[in-house]
Amino acid sequence: MKKKSLAILMRARMATPTHPVHQQQLVRTDRPPPPQGASRSGDVDDAGNSTSAPRVVLKDVKEWMQASISVPTEKTEPIDANIEKFSQGYLGLSQEGRRELLLELARDYDVNRARVCELMQQYLNVELPHGTGADAQGAQESNVVEDGGALAMFFRMERNLRDALKPLYAGFFEKLNTHPGGLKLLTTLRADLLALPVKENVPSLRALEAYLKEKLITWLSPASLELHQITWDDSASLLEKIVAYEAVHPIRNLLDLKRRLSEGRRCFGYFHPAIPGEPLIFIEVALLKDIAASIQEVLWDSPPTPEIEATCALFYSISATQPGLSGINLGKFLIKRVIYLLRRDMPHITAFATLSPIPGFMQWLISKLASQIKLAKWESEDMKHISEKGSGSNFREDILLPDEEVTILSSYIKWFNSGTTSEIEFDESEFMDQREHVSEKSAMEIMYEILTSRDWSKSVCLRESLKPSLLRLCARYLLKEKKRGKALDAVANFHLQNGSMVERINWMADHSDKGIEQSGGIMVNYVYRLDKIDTYAQSYLNTGHIHASCSVQQYLQLSSDELDHENHRVETASEDLKIQ
Amino acid sequence: MKKKSLAILMRARMATPTHPVHQQQLVRTDRPPPPQGASRSGDVDDAGNSTSAPRVVLKDVKEWMQASISVPTEKTEPIDANIEKFSQGYLGLSQEGRRELLLELARDYDVNRARVCELMQQYLNVELPHGTGADAQGAQESNVVEDGGALAMFFRMERNLRDALKPLYAGFFEKLNTHPGGLKLLTTLRADLLALPVKENVPSLRALEAYLKEKLITWLSPASLELHQITWDDSASLLEKIVAYEAVHPIRNLLDLKRRLSEGRRCFGYFHPAIPGEPLIFIEVALLKDIAASIQEVLWDSPPTPEIEATCALFYSISATQPGLSGINLGKFLIKRVIYLLRRDMPHITAFATLSPIPGFMQWLISKLASQIKLAKWESEDMKHISEKGSGSNFREDILLPDEEVTILSSYIKWFNSGTTSEIEFDESEFMDQREHVSEKSAMEIMYEILTSRDWSKSVCLRESLKPSLLRLCARYLLKEKKRGKALDAVANFHLQNGSMVERINWMADHSDKGIEQSGGIMVNYVYRLDKIDTYAQSYLNTGHIHASCSVQQYLQLSSDELDHENHRVETASEDLKIQ
Repeated sequence: MKKKSLAILMRARMATPTHPVHQQQLVRTDRPPPPQGASRSGDVDDAGNSTSAPRVVLKDVKEWMQASISVPTEKTEPIDANIEKFSQGYLGLSQEGRRELLLELARDYDVNRARVCELMQQYLNVELPHGTGADAQGAQESNVVEDGGALAMFFRMERNLRDALKPLYAGFFEKLNTHPGGLKLLTTLRADLLALPVKENVPSLRALEAYLKEKLITWLSPASLELHQITWDDSASLLEKIVAYEAVHPIRNLLDLKRRLSEGRRCFGYFHPAIPGEPLIFIEVALLKDIAASIQEVLWDSPPTPEIEATCALFYSISATQPGLSGINLGKFLIKRVIYLLRRDMPHITAFATLSPIPGFMQWLISKLASQIKLAKWESEDMKHISEKGSGSNFREDILLPDEEVTILSSYIKWFNSGTTSEIEFDESEFMDQREHVSEKSAMEIMYEILTSRDWSKSVCLRESLKPSLLRLCARYLLKEKKRGKALDAVANFHLQNGSMVERINWMADHSDKGIEQSGGIMVNYVYRLDKIDTYAQSYLNTGHIHASCSVQQYLQLSSDELDHENHRVETASEDLKIQ
Repeated sequence: MKKKSLAILMRARMATPTHPVHQQQLVRTDRPPPPQGASRSGDVDDAGNSTSAPRVVLKDVKEWMQASISVPTEKTEPIDANIEKFSQGYLGLSQEGRRELLLELARDYDVNRARVCELMQQYLNVELPHGTGADAQGAQESNVVEDGGALAMFFRMERNLRDALKPLYAGFFEKLNTHPGGLKLLTTLRADLLALPVKENVPSLRALEAYLKEKLITWLSPASLELHQITWDDSASLLEKIVAYEAVHPIRNLLDLKRRLSEGRRCFGYFHPAIPGEPLIFIEVALLKDIAASIQEVLWDSPPTPEIEATCALFYSISATQPGLSGINLGKFLIKRVIYLLRRDMPHITAFATLSPIPGFMQWLISKLASQIKLAKWESEDMKHISEKGSGSNFREDILLPDEEVTILSSYIKWFNSGTTSEIEFDESEFMDQREHVSEKSAMEIMYEILTSRDWSKSVCLRESLKPSLLRLCARYLLKEKKRGKALDAVANFHLQNGSMVERINWMADHSDKGIEQSGGIMVNYVYRLDKIDTYAQSYLNTGHIHASCSVQQYLQLSSDELDHENHRVETASEDLKIQ
């Protein structure tokens, strides 16, 4: 029965058109389709839609919720029946019903502020015992004699305050968590909260979501997660889930699945006792001779490297399965545990690396180019205004190095003049109608047009013309572009905060459509150096410093050195290369 | 290797003198001896004493602790090295070293009260947005338009306050919890805190212990526990732990162990992923035809009831294994899960009951008798003073019913006059020298002397003379004696809060030394009625009401009815029965 549903799923997958090569994307949280045929009675898919619960009346569900909440937290046990009814009822609600219920929960079961104020007044009216915690640093002498009574009162008041500052729905969450299936329902609640339209900018709903996230982080502490190596010996119902949730490099058929669980491959999942039978997150590892430079050689190396010859464990996919756990970083613990396990079992493996996408690179580059082109235009149109207006945060800068401009312009002209007859794969129609304007364009404009056109990467000539500048700009994007002091790129930030370093940038490492679109086909290897993980993570978290290998840093060196020395050459060079 | 250590443990057990029958004691938390030979390098026994860690310097351990704490909580990862060193170091400390370290943790990493006061001032200075949570009941209309900005500010301030009210050691606990082996260490810390001398009444240490308990309750939420049926197919290392921790009805040899895991028996344990290989608590179940009335028939029924004929699941032992989890009620969840499982798998089982000790009964009765004897003496010596002084909380009451007094006095005289020749087992020397005083004694005094003497239960005559009064007083103790509105007896409170009722009181159900000493040999059956568990738990928790069967309630009826009607007969009866 289970095998059958797995087969059906496989057939369904194989029937849908898939791209030949798919990009890795670390820690996906978008929702893959739920496994088909996997639902037993009462099962819940990932959006929390009950697959069997009957339609219920919102009023009833609200009443069950109220009945559950009205019982004080310590007296949690006997309200099971209401919790059970609520759980079933919630899953039967429409999206609109859920929204209304969550809004009521957020607004009517909020913090009791009158009580908080009252306790605060009391607290502030009592004088602090001398030298006990009023200033944490001041109380360092541990020989200080405690003023027992007064201090005990403070501890009591603080405890009461902590309780009073809990929203009333806190107890409800706690009860749900101890109820069978409750943790799963809580992730569904959070998924629903996250899925509310962005315009639903209600502070109490946001507070509800933030509080629920905090509680989920506590309940899903890595101490309560179990690491399980997923193998071909696992149940079909589990493997089916791996197929369903692995949307990074889709698994195309049973052979492909078997391959990922066999010789030279590892797959580890984090499981929680309260959500049995499906991993919350799982990682796929390839055991290789070297750190792979393209995703093709990872997915299609045949025969696989004999495990005894492997020296590198390459993490080529991490998939999170619960949309309700978005933003809760289980991956960092998973990677750590997996490294520990692999080291223990395979001491000949010395390199732990990823082959990762750079999902934000192209988007960043194209918008950068667009704004600079605009600025440049504006500048040339009205030189006088520029210094006065300042144009917000978009300052004029040289995105391309002089040499790169030369390369782009000359290659483009070459390509243009060659009539592109040899580039059979490249759809040149887009460029043809712009032929007449080429002479007026800057290298930035040409780059912009190439990158926003379809299938540019299929032209060897264009590809090669952009290679040096894209690689350098990618290094800059990864190492220098920050958001609140952290790497702008989400995947980079993920691996850097876990203690890795940027090891190598790989040209045309993923030439799938998505790979080209996201990162111009570039992928990056992050490397986890065992003796440096803690130090690197610490310095990244504290100062935002990103560790990178010399080869990657050289790209930046190039840019700063050359920019200083060679700025004067720009004018001349571009003059020289105008179409003749 | 593992089998061998199990065998060694068994031999050790068999070599030490054991009582023929041992009492069940529900939810033991005293520490059994650690499994012998089970410790691998770095393993920790239950007191947290490292079995291999070298002696360390307190100063170092303090430094590792400080280094771990000084990093802000969100930046938890890279301080692993310090956490690891601290974990190892702490286990190497002497008891005195641990005490000093815990004291420093409690005092110097307490709440930052200056910060708390500052935030409170801010909070109180901002006016509450109208109708939003100032009064939780007043905000019931969910159509109220939220004053977005103001409310968002409140949520932010409340979040900051919640953070500020956390002691500084909170983050340290969180880091420990995510560290491998950290949860186990945290239970060790709490065990050490609980083991500090009672006179160590330092408020900050008590606050530390209370806070740690709170966190452990969160981290050990039943959602994160796994129920596992322990069978003869489990590893020797696990079974060895069952033997070591089962101190309620000690397991005497391998056959005894096998018996408890085979036909007609079940053993279930709650496991936590972070503490692998040993249950936090486990329960032993016997499948029987009827609710057993004595522990002997549970432990030594041979052959066991065929499972198909069983209609009753009798919980005859629950053992908690971690002293650091004392006061954290995992048992209630365990019982619920086990009932659920048994119902599902064996629908012919309809009765779920315990056979439980009454650990506080004798202690209560003897101290009650002592104070009443004193009061009675005082009353007869100085009748005038009694109403003025009032004697604190000890009011004069008739512990024994008139009929019971008659029975006790007459049986005692009969026993006395018979020369006790037939009672070969009973050590009469204690009574012999008091022979001359018998004539002056009241029934209460005689009862007191009997109960405080050794081996009284071996005299059939004395046993029978006390039977009616002890059974009635036991019912009174279980149903009427309260502490803060809950049953005074700890085991009774445990089962009643879980939703059971008092079904039957069993005379001479445990005639081991401990059974006689604790409860006069009486044991009680609590019954879990499936359709009433929630209702009973609810009413007990809310009002303290204890549900009991008619047969048990009759004992109380007896007392109130007879006391009203027959109080006048007391004088006459006791006069008649003076030694002639």
